[in-house]
Amino acid sequence: MTYRDDIEGLDAAILMHPKVWQASGHVENFTDPMIDCKHCKARFRLDTLAEFISDKRKEKALKKLKEDLTEVNSGLIDQLDTILNNNEELNDKFTAVLENNLLAEELLRNLSCPQCGNTNTFTKPRSFNLMFKTYLGPVEKDGNQIYLRPETAQGIYVNFLNVQSASRQKLPFGIAQIGKAFRNEINTKNFLFRTREFEQMEMQYFVRPDEDKKWYDYWKEQRINWYKSLGIAEENLRFHDHPPDKLAHYAKEATDIEFKFPFGWGEIEGIHNRTNYDLKKHEEFSGKSQKYYDEELKEKYIPFIIETSAGASRSFMAFLVNSYHEEEVKGEKRVVLKLHPKLAPIKVAILPLVNKDGMPEVAKKIETELRLYLKVFYDSKGAIGRRYRRQDEAGTPFCITVDTQTLEDNTVTVRERDSMEQERINISGLLNYLLEKLR
Amino acid sequence: MTYRDDIEGLDAAILMHPKVWQASGHVENFTDPMIDCKHCKARFRLDTLAEFISDKRKEKALKKLKEDLTEVNSGLIDQLDTILNNNEELNDKFTAVLENNLLAEELLRNLSCPQCGNTNTFTKPRSFNLMFKTYLGPVEKDGNQIYLRPETAQGIYVNFLNVQSASRQKLPFGIAQIGKAFRNEINTKNFLFRTREFEQMEMQYFVRPDEDKKWYDYWKEQRINWYKSLGIAEENLRFHDHPPDKLAHYAKEATDIEFKFPFGWGEIEGIHNRTNYDLKKHEEFSGKSQKYYDEELKEKYIPFIIETSAGASRSFMAFLVNSYHEEEVKGEKRVVLKLHPKLAPIKVAILPLVNKDGMPEVAKKIETELRLYLKVFYDSKGAIGRRYRRQDEAGTPFCITVDTQTLEDNTVTVRERDSMEQERINISGLLNYLLEKLR
Repeated sequence: MTYRDDIEGLDAAILMHPKVWQASGHVENFTDPMIDCKHCKARFRLDTLAEFISDKRKEKALKKLKEDLTEVNSGLIDQLDTILNNNEELNDKFTAVLENNLLAEELLRNLSCPQCGNTNTFTKPRSFNLMFKTYLGPVEKDGNQIYLRPETAQGIYVNFLNVQSASRQKLPFGIAQIGKAFRNEINTKNFLFRTREFEQMEMQYFVRPDEDKKWYDYWKEQRINWYKSLGIAEENLRFHDHPPDKLAHYAKEATDIEFKFPFGWGEIEGIHNRTNYDLKKHEEFSGKSQKYYDEELKEKYIPFIIETSAGASRSFMAFLVNSYHEEEVKGEKRVVLKLHPKLAPIKVAILPLVNKDGMPEVAKKIETELRLYLKVFYDSKGAIGRRYRRQDEAGTPFCITVDTQTLEDNTVTVRERDSMEQERINISGLLNYLLEKLR
Repeated sequence: MTYRDDIEGLDAAILMHPKVWQASGHVENFTDPMIDCKHCKARFRLDTLAEFISDKRKEKALKKLKEDLTEVNSGLIDQLDTILNNNEELNDKFTAVLENNLLAEELLRNLSCPQCGNTNTFTKPRSFNLMFKTYLGPVEKDGNQIYLRPETAQGIYVNFLNVQSASRQKLPFGIAQIGKAFRNEINTKNFLFRTREFEQMEMQYFVRPDEDKKWYDYWKEQRINWYKSLGIAEENLRFHDHPPDKLAHYAKEATDIEFKFPFGWGEIEGIHNRTNYDLKKHEEFSGKSQKYYDEELKEKYIPFIIETSAGASRSFMAFLVNSYHEEEVKGEKRVVLKLHPKLAPIKVAILPLVNKDGMPEVAKKIETELRLYLKVFYDSKGAIGRRYRRQDEAGTPFCITVDTQTLEDNTVTVRERDSMEQERINISGLLNYLLEKLR
């Protein structure tokens, strides 16, 4: 079901021509700083290594750095104070600082290798590309090197004119894709938050160059409303606008939608005005025009792109965290996953109250009918209270019980997950009742 | 919508622990024979190289081989005759023969390298693994080597007990998955038929060991009927049962469902009785029990697996080929893609006949309403005949035209793709009419 007429779907390749990643800048820039121990050959990402430096030495080094820096530019003191006062950001900032080689030598001179224990054995920091690489064909040589896509976006860009001409869309229009992306992260962390293989869901919206601001603002609002419409509390969502001096090389404007995870605010989606940067690069590297002919304006140009790039895995985690509730019901703890009905993996559970008098038969008949329209779960085992709790934990919005009254008047009880309220509904109207509630 | 209650879904990882592929036998056995030119270092798959050998020399070599072999076993003559008489199979058989080193030396002794032209420079055939490999983390050493999954099946096997306990399924039940798989094929060919990145759709059915035959036969029938139910002509489908001496190491029984492509019969799905081979291997390599406790039998055992492994890309190609028709209508060629309505990418096209009298408004209103339930396409440009033809080529089952009569009596014409017959339907009943037809 497509509710919009201006978005087309795509399933691009994971393994693409390596030139795509040269054009996008990933081969050159998609890197982390790494250093090697010359003695034991172990390799470390600089920010990980920073964790092995004692707080005292960090403080001392930062103080020294602060003094050095303030000699040049006194405005930097505030920035450094933030680093010191804000533990959450300390690690990232530290890396940035180390990357700049301001601290690296000072810190690494006396640090012993966490693996072999030797000191003064570290190489200078070097860039390590985060793309997984492999070889096409049986010969492992440079010309055959290919990459697992580190993002789905480029697959959309290189297919832009294909999709546009096949779908006969006019600007503005978007191409959406859900798919796997891969990054050779040294440190995975926070469950699904940073993994090497992850699922992205992206929509790239192609617009006239002079309408970029309008559509950037439009998609910011659309996207944050999407999370709200699926039940994420407003206070757990925020925009983190990137300041102009921190923008990625392809971006004119950029913001993150952040969710308040138990471990702190984390990005779940990025919205970027990527200008015509990517398409221009692909035109340059492929030698193929990426220009769109605008019938109305009677001119050819490379469109601007507004990107909405969401992490499907991260959003999933946000929805889980947002939905998890513990509460007390009649003196006992109830765990309930208050998932929006659209996200609930099971929509309806069917629970015959006792296994007698033809009740399972009625329940099975209901199951068979509903199954054609809804994901259902049939459970006839154990006390009804326990069966309710199981469904609460799985986030099932509705439980249907078949009881003795069912056999008399053809009604069942429908229990709503969050309120735990029950209503008697006639079996003949059950499907429509549920479809209405689940809409 | 799940129509069966005994199949669960899964989305397993593409990058898994390398031991999974040791256990499955892929690290050791998933290979092609390759030879190198010692002079220019070019590498060739043996069967490709065989293409460079002249027919005359092939004949001579085969004749010699035939004589050699028939000295030992006269039954082999027939087999060799088949090779010679059946050009389609010649290449594969040739490879097999070369692999066995029966012909290789004879043939390669005098063959010049297709790249540098030198003779007598080939190495002996060596195995080349078809799995794409990459490295986890920044150090490229053996212990960090991982693989892109060459099939989705193993991801299902290693998750079997997870899924079973979470879904509380009892045997027999299945786990289904659609996803990408990767094989470093030297020669891709026949469009979508052999590609390095492709989409599989698999269902692995876990059964009691003594019920394997029953379920193997059941799924053979179910699966071939699936293709038929989606419109593939019976004469273009066949089973190719694997003879006992040709079975893969994991299989007790195996069959391919083949489709008659323009280039010959080709496998679109494999159905295998894999016994308990895979789960036993995973138990052995992981040290984790893969046994299922059968409550009814009160015993623990490793289930047998009936695999239905379909190529989504190949099936897609089969459906396209099967649907393509050219016919003459009123002296002009009509190209029509007679896709089953379930497979048609666009279900309904909405074509306002002329752009006046509020017709586009009515058409747009119909579009908006139908779009919530069906993939629709709106086209208001060009002669109606040409618009029909475009939709015929795209395989759209129904075209709706809004004309002057619409404004008088609120009816539209609905044109069916294959018969080209038109019916007038009241707009109020349009959605139900279409949903009924498309079911």
